[in-house]
Amino acid sequence: MRLARVLTENGPRIASISEDGATPLAATRFGDLFMSADRQPAADVVVDPVMLNPADETTRIFCVGHNYRHHIEEMGRSVPEHPTIFFKLPSATIGPYDDIVLPAHSAAMDWEVELAVIVGADLRDASDEQCRAAVAGYTLINDVTERDWQRRTSQWFLGKNFERTTPLGPVVVTPEDLPHDHAGNVDIEITCEVNGVVRQRTRTGDLVFPVPRLLACLSRVVTLRPGDIIATGTPGGVGAAATPPTFLRPGDTIRTSATGIGSCVNRCRTGPDT
Amino acid sequence: MRLARVLTENGPRIASISEDGATPLAATRFGDLFMSADRQPAADVVVDPVMLNPADETTRIFCVGHNYRHHIEEMGRSVPEHPTIFFKLPSATIGPYDDIVLPAHSAAMDWEVELAVIVGADLRDASDEQCRAAVAGYTLINDVTERDWQRRTSQWFLGKNFERTTPLGPVVVTPEDLPHDHAGNVDIEITCEVNGVVRQRTRTGDLVFPVPRLLACLSRVVTLRPGDIIATGTPGGVGAAATPPTFLRPGDTIRTSATGIGSCVNRCRTGPDT
Repeated sequence: MRLARVLTENGPRIASISEDGATPLAATRFGDLFMSADRQPAADVVVDPVMLNPADETTRIFCVGHNYRHHIEEMGRSVPEHPTIFFKLPSATIGPYDDIVLPAHSAAMDWEVELAVIVGADLRDASDEQCRAAVAGYTLINDVTERDWQRRTSQWFLGKNFERTTPLGPVVVTPEDLPHDHAGNVDIEITCEVNGVVRQRTRTGDLVFPVPRLLACLSRVVTLRPGDIIATGTPGGVGAAATPPTFLRPGDTIRTSATGIGSCVNRCRTGPDT
Repeated sequence: MRLARVLTENGPRIASISEDGATPLAATRFGDLFMSADRQPAADVVVDPVMLNPADETTRIFCVGHNYRHHIEEMGRSVPEHPTIFFKLPSATIGPYDDIVLPAHSAAMDWEVELAVIVGADLRDASDEQCRAAVAGYTLINDVTERDWQRRTSQWFLGKNFERTTPLGPVVVTPEDLPHDHAGNVDIEITCEVNGVVRQRTRTGDLVFPVPRLLACLSRVVTLRPGDIIATGTPGGVGAAATPPTFLRPGDTIRTSATGIGSCVNRCRTGPDT
């Protein structure tokens, strides 16, 4: 099943997506959808989908750093024993076709395509197997990062949280509709193109900490709940690691893609924010 | 004015606090209170205050590391050029007299008394002076930290976010009722006692980055909004820096205090969480 958060005349709704359009369901949030068994259409209508990002203003977005060997090596780090977790506010996110707003005082905005997981159940001190069964679906996130602000202190939070910089979407695909490897981990190709040039490409089966492990680790600290999003980390090919370092400029277009999910296409511009 | 979030028969309400008790106002959240001019009593009643922490489940808590010279030195770091910011979820917080739940798999829970600021206006790319005028009030936070989880990767998020570990309260005091130094910064003494022994004591006038500077820096990245909380950093005297390192055990009692605000008193116990 393909699901998206779309704009309807009654406001944002979760909708089932097909080639014919979007069929709105009763739920307004992914969290509500996965907490209830009611996935029936709210009305017998199909709308032209105006795609929103999967996060609303209450969504929690847990992000992972250092989770592909190639990216770990290009950033000059060693393979970690534990996942590195930071937090992104929903105010940082935008829809799959919205403009990325480059901060006026920034010259180091960088791309980071990632597989994102939507949690579908409460998880507390959960096993890997419980976590695997609790994945509601997958989507794409572009964890666009301001490298100067990320690096000027030890904590990445500010560099990761500029408003209206993080594309999320375009749809959430439930696990049964995506290929998995022999270990049971989702294994699709994710790609980031900047102005038509492929900058990042990997298979998600190469994650150092696969999805169930990430959820299990988080569940030792917080109770994960339906609608939570986990950004699983980015592969090699970021602009900061290029020679010379290459950052986003107004007018650049980024396309992030995943097999079986689709693409986000986002133009970069300077403010105003809205 | 002294304000608190208290439990009434109609659920949580913001209340005006006096020696006679708590007079509930219409607002259920600090953010709503500071967005409206309506600070009249909801009803002509005074209740026995059951004090809740100032955060509800939608509150954003921005935290600062490395902001007192003494604590920077005891942790072996140099004085920074920029504030170090990380994020705490409201699920980590508890009320001023609630038990701190020590995680079953932790042996390194540590205290960190801090001055906390409640934001009273929208702030985006704001000046220090705009930020100074936007402070709604002050309270206390004990940024209890799991040092092993904080340190096992570069990012502190997990070590700072164990559920039901962070006392917040007991009341929010508006700026006009607290002393300020010649630079216009709030200057009160904050203290942390563990089992009756003073472990931390400082004046908030010693902050490397004073409150208006912190808010201005945050406002370059996110739009601060009424009800946001900023934990301004902890002074020297944490358990990890003691010889030998000293961490919290079941049965320990922590009292955090601030002149003009009051005290939180919290006993440590192991789970269950609730």
